[in-house]
Amino acid sequence: MIMPYTAKIKVTLRQSILDVQGKAVEHALKNLGYHTVESARIGKYIEVTINEESLMEAERICNEISQKLLSNPVMENYSFELEQVN
Amino acid sequence: MIMPYTAKIKVTLRQSILDVQGKAVEHALKNLGYHTVESARIGKYIEVTINEESLMEAERICNEISQKLLSNPVMENYSFELEQVN
Repeated sequence: MIMPYTAKIKVTLRQSILDVQGKAVEHALKNLGYHTVESARIGKYIEVTINEESLMEAERICNEISQKLLSNPVMENYSFELEQVN
Repeated sequence: MIMPYTAKIKVTLRQSILDVQGKAVEHALKNLGYHTVESARIGKYIEVTINEESLMEAERICNEISQKLLSNPVMENYSFELEQVN
């Protein structure tokens, strides 16, 4: 039976890659007076619904689309949580 | 004692706002042959380190910076997880 699964995917820059947007946020926070906040890093958050027969199959699809479309494997890492929709 | 906390913040477009980037991803997935994937929505994912004396204080700061800088409350929602760094 086909069931809907929600995938919550986070795509982040690899630690070795300079995060320019993150640096800008750090500066802005300092300027706003938030001196206790440090090391901001900015990534993408993607939510998709996957209709598949099993969690394993949904996981396979989620890995594939993350690698092929949603992230750039040279510069970015991804991780996801997958759960069945009730 | 001041402790570091990691905040993982997700900023997403409100349901009523058209997500153009998400629609583009949906189309791209269809074109790549992923017909079981639907309704992609794209947001931001931000990780910051907050040095504060308590989880409560870190939570207060995290709410403030999310509302003031990281999200646009008119169009976006935010949520976060906060955990002490070991």
